Amino acid sequence: MGKGGMSVDDDHGEEQNMAAWLVAINTLKIQPFNLPPLGPHDVRVRMKAVGICGSDVHYLKTLRCAHFVVEEPMVIGHECAGIIEEVGSEVKALVPGDRVAIEPGISCWRCDHCKQGRYNLCPDMKFFATPPVHGSLANQIVHPADLCFKLPDNVSLEEGAMCEPLSVGVHACRRAEIGPETKVLIMGAGPIGLVTMLAARAFGAPRIVIVDVDDHRLSVAKSLGADDIVKVSTNSQDVPGEVEQIHKAMGADVDVTFDCAGFNKTMTTALSATKPGGKVCLVGMGHSEMTVPLTPAAAREVDVIGIFRYKNTWPLCLEFLRSGKIDVKPLITHRYGFSQKEVEEAFETSAAGGNAIKVMFNL
Amino acid sequence: MGKGGMSVDDDHGEEQNMAAWLVAINTLKIQPFNLPPLGPHDVRVRMKAVGICGSDVHYLKTLRCAHFVVEEPMVIGHECAGIIEEVGSEVKALVPGDRVAIEPGISCWRCDHCKQGRYNLCPDMKFFATPPVHGSLANQIVHPADLCFKLPDNVSLEEGAMCEPLSVGVHACRRAEIGPETKVLIMGAGPIGLVTMLAARAFGAPRIVIVDVDDHRLSVAKSLGADDIVKVSTNSQDVPGEVEQIHKAMGADVDVTFDCAGFNKTMTTALSATKPGGKVCLVGMGHSEMTVPLTPAAAREVDVIGIFRYKNTWPLCLEFLRSGKIDVKPLITHRYGFSQKEVEEAFETSAAGGNAIKVMFNL
Amino acid sequence: MGKGGMSVDDDHGEEQNMAAWLVAINTLKIQPFNLPPLGPHDVRVRMKAVGICGSDVHYLKTLRCAHFVVEEPMVIGHECAGIIEEVGSEVKALVPGDRVAIEPGISCWRCDHCKQGRYNLCPDMKFFATPPVHGSLANQIVHPADLCFKLPDNVSLEEGAMCEPLSVGVHACRRAEIGPETKVLIMGAGPIGLVTMLAARAFGAPRIVIVDVDDHRLSVAKSLGADDIVKVSTNSQDVPGEVEQIHKAMGADVDVTFDCAGFNKTMTTALSATKPGGKVCLVGMGHSEMTVPLTPAAAREVDVIGIFRYKNTWPLCLEFLRSGKIDVKPLITHRYGFSQKEVEEAFETSAAGGNAIKVMFNL
Amino acid sequence: MGKGGMSVDDDHGEEQNMAAWLVAINTLKIQPFNLPPLGPHDVRVRMKAVGICGSDVHYLKTLRCAHFVVEEPMVIGHECAGIIEEVGSEVKALVPGDRVAIEPGISCWRCDHCKQGRYNLCPDMKFFATPPVHGSLANQIVHPADLCFKLPDNVSLEEGAMCEPLSVGVHACRRAEIGPETKVLIMGAGPIGLVTMLAARAFGAPRIVIVDVDDHRLSVAKSLGADDIVKVSTNSQDVPGEVEQIHKAMGADVDVTFDCAGFNKTMTTALSATKPGGKVCLVGMGHSEMTVPLTPAAAREVDVIGIFRYKNTWPLCLEFLRSGKIDVKPLITHRYGFSQKEVEEAFETSAAGGNAIKVMFNL
Repeated sequence: MGKGGMSVDDDHGEEQNMAAWLVAINTLKIQPFNLPPLGPHDVRVRMKAVGICGSDVHYLKTLRCAHFVVEEPMVIGHECAGIIEEVGSEVKALVPGDRVAIEPGISCWRCDHCKQGRYNLCPDMKFFATPPVHGSLANQIVHPADLCFKLPDNVSLEEGAMCEPLSVGVHACRRAEIGPETKVLIMGAGPIGLVTMLAARAFGAPRIVIVDVDDHRLSVAKSLGADDIVKVSTNSQDVPGEVEQIHKAMGADVDVTFDCAGFNKTMTTALSATKPGGKVCLVGMGHSEMTVPLTPAAAREVDVIGIFRYKNTWPLCLEFLRSGKIDVKPLITHRYGFSQKEVEEAFETSAAGGNAIKVMFNL
Repeated sequence: MGKGGMSVDDDHGEEQNMAAWLVAINTLKIQPFNLPPLGPHDVRVRMKAVGICGSDVHYLKTLRCAHFVVEEPMVIGHECAGIIEEVGSEVKALVPGDRVAIEPGISCWRCDHCKQGRYNLCPDMKFFATPPVHGSLANQIVHPADLCFKLPDNVSLEEGAMCEPLSVGVHACRRAEIGPETKVLIMGAGPIGLVTMLAARAFGAPRIVIVDVDDHRLSVAKSLGADDIVKVSTNSQDVPGEVEQIHKAMGADVDVTFDCAGFNKTMTTALSATKPGGKVCLVGMGHSEMTVPLTPAAAREVDVIGIFRYKNTWPLCLEFLRSGKIDVKPLITHRYGFSQKEVEEAFETSAAGGNAIKVMFNL
Repeated sequence: MGKGGMSVDDDHGEEQNMAAWLVAINTLKIQPFNLPPLGPHDVRVRMKAVGICGSDVHYLKTLRCAHFVVEEPMVIGHECAGIIEEVGSEVKALVPGDRVAIEPGISCWRCDHCKQGRYNLCPDMKFFATPPVHGSLANQIVHPADLCFKLPDNVSLEEGAMCEPLSVGVHACRRAEIGPETKVLIMGAGPIGLVTMLAARAFGAPRIVIVDVDDHRLSVAKSLGADDIVKVSTNSQDVPGEVEQIHKAMGADVDVTFDCAGFNKTMTTALSATKPGGKVCLVGMGHSEMTVPLTPAAAREVDVIGIFRYKNTWPLCLEFLRSGKIDVKPLITHRYGFSQKEVEEAFETSAAGGNAIKVMFNL
Repeated sequence: MGKGGMSVDDDHGEEQNMAAWLVAINTLKIQPFNLPPLGPHDVRVRMKAVGICGSDVHYLKTLRCAHFVVEEPMVIGHECAGIIEEVGSEVKALVPGDRVAIEPGISCWRCDHCKQGRYNLCPDMKFFATPPVHGSLANQIVHPADLCFKLPDNVSLEEGAMCEPLSVGVHACRRAEIGPETKVLIMGAGPIGLVTMLAARAFGAPRIVIVDVDDHRLSVAKSLGADDIVKVSTNSQDVPGEVEQIHKAMGADVDVTFDCAGFNKTMTTALSATKPGGKVCLVGMGHSEMTVPLTPAAAREVDVIGIFRYKNTWPLCLEFLRSGKIDVKPLITHRYGFSQKEVEEAFETSAAGGNAIKVMFNL
């Protein structure tokens, strides 16, 4: 037990802490994971719910994501919630037994970005499962207390774990300044498109139209609250006609478009469909280099807003979940336990796509 | 004389008002131009200085600019200043004899953009020399008084006419939120790059690096106050090395980049060189469709800000000129009178480029 | 019929248009009211619902409001909705028969405030029932079409008239930047406190505590959606204890306080209860000169935000009414017809206060 | 020497570190001051220039300032600059010998204010010479490296120490959004009024009028760059006439007023003189409870902006000093060495006021 701290688990030293290690391409192994010592402002958390993110799958398949490369075995996972087991000597806001959702990134608080309130841009960020930092698909982890947010009584641990993907949507809505007057178009009804839609609604968006190439995804989006859906092709030549369809479905100007796909065609549609003075928020990362009509959009003062992770989103996500403004439970389509076999199956399910939206571990 | 108004020129009806009409491709003719009646909030202005803009040349060469097409003979010109001849019955802030710089666009004040303070986006804007609206290269024009801004005593009529191109830079700086902490990179040292540079300096930018492919333009930029210049190639493969050069020249992070050229290569450089959380403001219109690394930039929260003309810029431009924070006189490289022959020569000079920055008519 | 316009009422010239004129203190007379000619951008509207505002009552009792003085007989009333009878030749968005809510102020669109998007501050504003401008408690009025907003099918004319008081709350919420994270305290549960509460909720405020001295008003506020209520005294010495009560009722920091009363005591409570970095928005006008602990509040960066009327609020109000995010019907407590006797009674009811919130004429 | 760190002073352990301790009312004693151990992100700095602030004098005279009370002997001083002697093992941006200006407050980086970029509002801030935290009037101090800002070559250590008072003005200008269009009125030409004036100029304010009751202070303000000065009385009844004088001196609307005095009369003048839609920034703290016409100001949307210390100001202050946009040297009117006798004299000089603006120790 930490000096001056509190613990419900005095003999945790005897428990072997296990984690899911990414050891090679397509190879995850449940192996022992030694925890670092508990600092005065840290807590030790027993993981109860961990979701699988597209980036986790990407690392598993390629050992890479964006410019990050896994060079040493790394514990995977970063969408998580759990129960406090032990608190450091200086921790005042949490006690053992508290159920918490966990923000995965630890920033430096010494750089300009951190000091200016944009800590998500910190170049020294230590982020779960971003090499060389270990993730959180483990029995227990140690983490700063101020990144662990107590769950309201009516919010489950699984919902707590969903704060992470939801945070992407919340951050996007904040940067795009969504409010009760903003008519919103969303390109792409995948998991990120869906959390962005839920967030936009919770920020007050009075009308949301969502676009995809896939009927099933569109029907899910509709059932989760889209005001209208537009099915599109993958053919770039269809953009003008599809923009017309979108405008008809919206029945009003498009104030903000979230491109949650990030392909040449989706971004072309986004730039064309958005009203003069509106914003396109680029969330998806389909193409890296893009061929798009950027100049005519700029000449209508359509700004393109970028997104990197999130900041200060957990309290708002938990408020949205508490109040029922957002219901993330329908997004959790598959559940697995934390055995070697189930971990493998879970990642296969997530990688296969199909009807899976969020695959969740219950530990 | 307008009922209840004042005039220094009671017999102006006898003067034949002449203007430079664009009548066909490559054909400008000085011909009579009948003025509309003077409304109660209008003024009649005798033009004294009119500059030639790139868009004027574009219309002359092609009868087109962006999506606008000249279908009837149209008076050209929109960068102008003059002297009040007559004021409408309700005009209180101006009297005949006042020297004024003229904002060329009349917006509707009934649409949402107008009411929300973004009148430059008004879809019903009537803008000098944008078909079917006549321009201001004429002996006299009639214009709303609230778009005519009295020149400070120490600001010349030619400088007054320069408020129009300068406004583009001022509007760009406002939208990009330039201030005393913003390190600025400018792609392109043409007329728009130069006015943007002058405006950025006046907004307080502590360090400005400007980039071009042309030695002469760079030396002009340096003489007008650039802190450093970087000569680049037109070869896209040179971008990484040139970004390095730019960073070295800046000696600091690039907070905001103005792309005043608007080509694939300049925008690629802009997106790559700008710091996480920074902004790229797209001012130039070289390419319409662009192939650029938009996604990696967005993933660093580099926003792309668009620009269309300007709004509420004349008072600030005049203050910059009055105080000496901006000196536009060195930009005026050529001067012509208002005869058929000189109009033709002036447009040839402007079209030829070379060392011409701003070609000005003195009427 | 207006030249080139449309009308459902070709012989309206034969109808005697009547209006409620304020002719002396405590004296309203229904008398003929000649309409101005219909301009090309105007509409003629048959009034169907007109509410009584506190300022109307104030004018009736004193012939004054703030620095305005009624020196000539003036038609009263400015909260209104009606049906289009005739449209000017240039009006495209409305046709006779359209049901519209009416924004009462006509600004100049030539001053800096208008051009910069803060037209509510226009010094030349012509505002219904603000001397010397006539109001709208009349059978018909003529008004600019762009200030007449078509009602959604599911919004009644009475609800349309309620857009005016609701706009005060909406404008206050915009200036105070209320969103889904803003915990809101409201001082005063009178009509303005209530519309501010409804607006704050519609902007997403997750928790609203409202304070008053009157049990009935508090119970109304509770029934209209306040999360908690706090009854206070009129004794200034009770402030510290009441701030504690407020904090307990909020269960969180107070991010924004709206002082909808505007007395020394309410403002003292507001400044003391609001968190560092929060905002106090002063809406009520109980005291003119105030004795309040402004310095300690400023030293916690609690900003005091002022409010004057509203701008660009009608579309949002109508969206809130359409979507059901706001229900103003419970605020309409009394209804009267448009006879001399009923006008007198209606104003008496409104002046008496008691349980009256909004008194409405049905014409 | 710190493990892994660097030092120019290997035997500093043998030097007795001395500091100026506030031990009782009106009693400062130079006594030994034991430094805390050097953390991995800390530096040890040899103090070279320390200024005396009004709050230092206030503590000396009363052992109190605002709600802070000195209960144990405390080292005084917080405006300082020095030379790095030793750096912690993780410090990369500084090396021994570097000349640095020092930001005095260490915030927690765990609370919402810190995370949201308003660290100046951190409730757990540890700030030099704010009980129970020791100050910096000492031979040496230990401080976080990220709060030590390297001086440009052309900026002296004394100027470095002036970054602290200048930061107050810079923070006020940022919160009030001063730019090249903002006409500024300043109430009070004391040290804070002067640094605010210098900062407003550096932010681009085109016209600054400053007001005081004292001829000498006004003449200093004029010599430091005020465009005009207005001498006022201490009689509240003179406000209307003085507002007229101020408007005449400004020759334009007052966009922002800084009340750097903070008395009923100065704030009444500020609220009355500022244009509709403008801002009053309350910097001074003359009166705590204020009796002022807050309601009429709010009804013109004049916002009152509060200020607490500063955040992220050192880099900008140093840029202003480097570029010459601000010259703080004329503010340093008196200099003293660091002996018991000189410390006493220096504080007497500062407390006496008179012509002293800034009293500086050279250690």
